[in-house]
Amino acid sequence: MQLTILGTSAGGPFHGRHYTAQVLQIDNHLFLIDCGEGAQMQLYHHRIKIDRCNHIFISHLHGDHVYGLIGLLTSWCLKKRTESIHLFAPPGLQELVETTARICRVVFPYDLVFHEVDASVSTLVFENSKMEVWTIPLDHRIETSGWLFREKPKQRHIRPEKIEQYAIPYALIPGIKAGDDLLLPDGSTVPNAEMTEDPAAPRSFAFCSDTAPSELVAETVRGVDVLYHEATFTNEHLAEAEVAFHSTAEQAAEIARRAGVKRLLLGHFSGRYSNTEQHLAEARAVFPESYATEDGEVVEI
Amino acid sequence: MQLTILGTSAGGPFHGRHYTAQVLQIDNHLFLIDCGEGAQMQLYHHRIKIDRCNHIFISHLHGDHVYGLIGLLTSWCLKKRTESIHLFAPPGLQELVETTARICRVVFPYDLVFHEVDASVSTLVFENSKMEVWTIPLDHRIETSGWLFREKPKQRHIRPEKIEQYAIPYALIPGIKAGDDLLLPDGSTVPNAEMTEDPAAPRSFAFCSDTAPSELVAETVRGVDVLYHEATFTNEHLAEAEVAFHSTAEQAAEIARRAGVKRLLLGHFSGRYSNTEQHLAEARAVFPESYATEDGEVVEI
Repeated sequence: MQLTILGTSAGGPFHGRHYTAQVLQIDNHLFLIDCGEGAQMQLYHHRIKIDRCNHIFISHLHGDHVYGLIGLLTSWCLKKRTESIHLFAPPGLQELVETTARICRVVFPYDLVFHEVDASVSTLVFENSKMEVWTIPLDHRIETSGWLFREKPKQRHIRPEKIEQYAIPYALIPGIKAGDDLLLPDGSTVPNAEMTEDPAAPRSFAFCSDTAPSELVAETVRGVDVLYHEATFTNEHLAEAEVAFHSTAEQAAEIARRAGVKRLLLGHFSGRYSNTEQHLAEARAVFPESYATEDGEVVEI
Repeated sequence: MQLTILGTSAGGPFHGRHYTAQVLQIDNHLFLIDCGEGAQMQLYHHRIKIDRCNHIFISHLHGDHVYGLIGLLTSWCLKKRTESIHLFAPPGLQELVETTARICRVVFPYDLVFHEVDASVSTLVFENSKMEVWTIPLDHRIETSGWLFREKPKQRHIRPEKIEQYAIPYALIPGIKAGDDLLLPDGSTVPNAEMTEDPAAPRSFAFCSDTAPSELVAETVRGVDVLYHEATFTNEHLAEAEVAFHSTAEQAAEIARRAGVKRLLLGHFSGRYSNTEQHLAEARAVFPESYATEDGEVVEI
């Protein structure tokens, strides 16, 4: 898994920061997460081959997370895209896209498949053979969903020399990868542990844009490898965070600590801060594996 | 008059070019003309004090000319703008802005005043004490209006020494500035030409985004100081220009020549061209005072 942070700004195009958008690459699949204004310029600037993306996840319909979507969808018309695009979001996205397309005379040469999600509970909304995506109920002023990307448990690796040693028939290999022992023609048994190695642990990434600190979030993202959690404010502006249903960096760190995640990425910084030193200091006091994201940063998961 | 070009791209964020947006400053007034995606970032990047702008002119509702508007309007909410904004555009803009605002929960703390223009004829749509704005009927795939900014004729300058010499009463000065002669107490007359000097000639700027070459455009912009005319293609792609109701650089230059304008600015370049040398060569062969615009360029009119 590789995550590219395209924008880290909450409120405006300040201090060289762009609006929220991230790209998660899992094997050959690209997932676009949120799409603030200018996301397509950032995708182009960072040379991300977004035309390969078939799945877009929009956390909520505040402009700084969605205003760039229609531009990307329209650009795909000029590029004569034909592959369907799947759009996951709380209610309203379909009306927004379709109304804009009607007024601005956009005729899509590809299918848009809208998946309206219920952001009040954590639900499986997408899966393929290797991974799943779950909603994360966030606590914001409007219906807002985080997104939990989780690889499925991988099969065990068979040691190649054991296939030769025991002349393991091809038909039995899927079972052994799934954990079966091997019954030999002489009636004896080769335990699975002798033939296989543990697979790499499934990796996971949780994206939590725009939320007040929430125990439900901590429960939902328990143990993930990387948690991205908004940290719009520092402690100095705690009261503002509460009013706006946003979090401070310390609150984000507290969620990371309680959830027992491995690493915390902070973002969605208010335009009033010219740098993120204070966010980082306040977060690390609670959860040392905290990092402040920068536009264009690439994170290996 | 000072014009700042914020974007020169037709089709996408290629070769460092942004979507169409321009800012015209006349005295202390700022007029924003078209507002493609990312315009607010460009405004910020080029340090334009756009909060002072009260009038926005949108030529037509294709995305590359309007997708950046809602972001700018939303940012003004965060900045607690209170002054009304006047929006001039062909039909559809009000529905686009109001639908997006409803779905994305934008509550404007200032008034939006929509002026729906008829782009089929040249009409006066705005004036103040110093200048006027007229629509320019363009010939595009959807209803599209260019914008003609024209200073009103200025009053004559009175030579200060003449006020003293003839003890001109204060009450007579407006009349003399307007061209009156002066009747002296002895019955003799001082001709206006002795007391006054010619004012600076009124300046004018015409903005013609997205149009096939049109004789009506040439008539409407006759004699302007600066004509911005789209030049999406070079002659090599003339057939495509015709299908899409766009112009080649040579066609733009032919309009400038027929209209007798002083200077021609070319823009709205297709993403297929990495530079504008060919556009410029083809335009200058017809109209030598042709210039290819660049993002961020400032033009004194």
